[in-house]
This record gives sequence, structure tokens and C-alpha cells, in this order.
Amino acid sequence: ARPRVGYFYTGKTGLQLLTERMKKLTVHDYQSIPVVVNESASVYDAIVTMFLEDVGTLFVVDHNSHLVGVLSRKDLLRASIGKQELESIPVSIIMTRMPNITICEQEDFLLEMAKELIDKQIDGIPVVKKVEEDEQIRYEVVGRLTKTNITRAFVDLTNGEIT
Amino acid sequence: ARPRVGYFYTGKTGLQLLTERMKKLTVHDYQSIPVVVNESASVYDAIVTMFLEDVGTLFVVDHNSHLVGVLSRKDLLRASIGKQELESIPVSIIMTRMPNITICEQEDFLLEMAKELIDKQIDGIPVVKKVEEDEQIRYEVVGRLTKTNITRAFVDLTNGEIT
Repeated sequence: ARPRVGYFYTGKTGLQLLTERMKKLTVHDYQSIPVVVNESASVYDAIVTMFLEDVGTLFVVDHNSHLVGVLSRKDLLRASIGKQELESIPVSIIMTRMPNITICEQEDFLLEMAKELIDKQIDGIPVVKKVEEDEQIRYEVVGRLTKTNITRAFVDLTNGEIT
Repeated sequence: ARPRVGYFYTGKTGLQLLTERMKKLTVHDYQSIPVVVNESASVYDAIVTMFLEDVGTLFVVDHNSHLVGVLSRKDLLRASIGKQELESIPVSIIMTRMPNITICEQEDFLLEMAKELIDKQIDGIPVVKKVEEDEQIRYEVVGRLTKTNITRAFVDLTNGEIT
């Protein structure tokens, strides 16, 4: 029988081990607090909320606090050069609407979501929790994932803070 | 004398080696193409340029193509909920102005600029080249560094594409 002593060659280098650890980082490790507005809020109110909360993406919810849309700075800027009064347009008119929204859960891998942010050219992804209501799947917003979070992960990695 | 054979212990693990390589990444490795507007352009024109070019940050230059300011989506959005006509306000009124701008050069380390993006809460940094004119230092804009670029570096790192 093979003696149970000494070192065993795992077939992996230090580089591969680090890459594996990096791949195991989850959304939960880096997500931010979400900022939501109600679907009946005006575009003007949404812009003000964006400034007060200092975020680049707002999530839109219905009266049951379920996710119905996403608003980016770009969406709001587009509306602002339109001819309508910003106080009189509800955000539900200009938001990106479910199910055309990229969502993620806390257990998802950060790497996959970083790819989504780049490939789909989006600023922020809502982190959601599934809930069943009236035999339909709905989503509660529990977090926010942006390129700022990914940039922080990059800094942590590069500083050797993830080991 | 010490024999010049065999392995020498460098005192570094594979993890430390990768971290060092990551730290050596420069702005030049990941920068994007810059989009500039003239300081006499209107806020309306700047917003339209931002949409046509699909960027989140514009750099403002004078008639000699030297950097004089930076415009973020946030700056333009703030202006858009003001009471003035967007066609009649020049961007020079609302831009962040030199020297209150974070700039970088192509040789700067990506890690340092990632930290700047987070710490100063900015969306984009102009990549510049110094030029001397009338015994004064001016800057030509040669690139654009954003959190999207850092996110791409994160994906490359995590995919083991930087070795």
C-alpha cells in the first residue's frame, strides 16, 4: 500500500489555485445595497432619488415590492432630452421591463455577472430572491451589483486580499 | 563558494507571482478610445454625443485639443433637471474643470487607477499625454479608462488569461 506520508502532488500550481479561488467569489461577497422606486414615481422623482442616493441604477418595484423594472442614468438622460414634462411621466413608461432584465442571485458567481455587465453593456444588475405568489415566480430585490463592485474585487485580488 | 546548480528558493509562491503580474498591468493594456467635445458645445449636443458614441464620460477640449474638463452622465443629468434650456448652456459651465480632474498616463498601473475610480467615485478617467506649450504643461487626450475596462481585466484575470 502507498505510504500516507509526505507531500502529494495535486496536479495544480499556485496560479491555478488562485484562479479557482477567484472563480468561487459570489455576488454575495461584493454586492451593494439596492435603491428602489415605485412604478408610479415620476421620472423627475427618479432622477432626484438617483442623486440623493448617489447610485447609477434604480430598481422599480410594484405595490408588493416585487421587481418590475430597471432604470439606468442613460434611460433617465434619454427621457430628459425628450419634449415631455419629467414630472408627468411615470418611470414605468421609460424603464427596462421584466422579463427583459438581467437579474442574479446572491449565490451566483461574480465572474459570470462581470461577463454579463460587459457583454450586455449594463451598469447594474438587481440581486433578487425568488418568491412564489399566486403560483407565479416573483422577485424581491435584496441587492445591487455594479461595475464598481467588480472594480473593488479587482483591487482586492490585486492587493492579495483574496487568498 | 556556493555551487551554481539546482533550484534556488526565491521566497515567492505561485500566488505571490500572479499578484505581481497583476500589479504590472498598465492603463495601456486596457484603455478605451476617448470621446471628446469642444468646450463651446451645448449641454444638449453633449448628451446627444454621449448617446451616439455610447459612452458614460465625455472629455472636453479647447481649440488646441487640450483637455479642459470632464463630463459625466451625472453632470448632464443634473443639468437636465435644471430650469435652463439645454441648447443654450455651454458644457464649460457644468463640466468638472482642470485641474480638479483625475488624469492618468498610459504607463500608469491599472491597480492604482482602479483605486482612484472607487475612492473618488468617478466613472471615467482621461488617459493623457503631456505636451509643453508656451512653457506650460498641457494634456492631449489619448484614451479613456472606466470601470468597464477594470471589469474586463477582472474577467481576464479570473479566466486565467493573464499568466
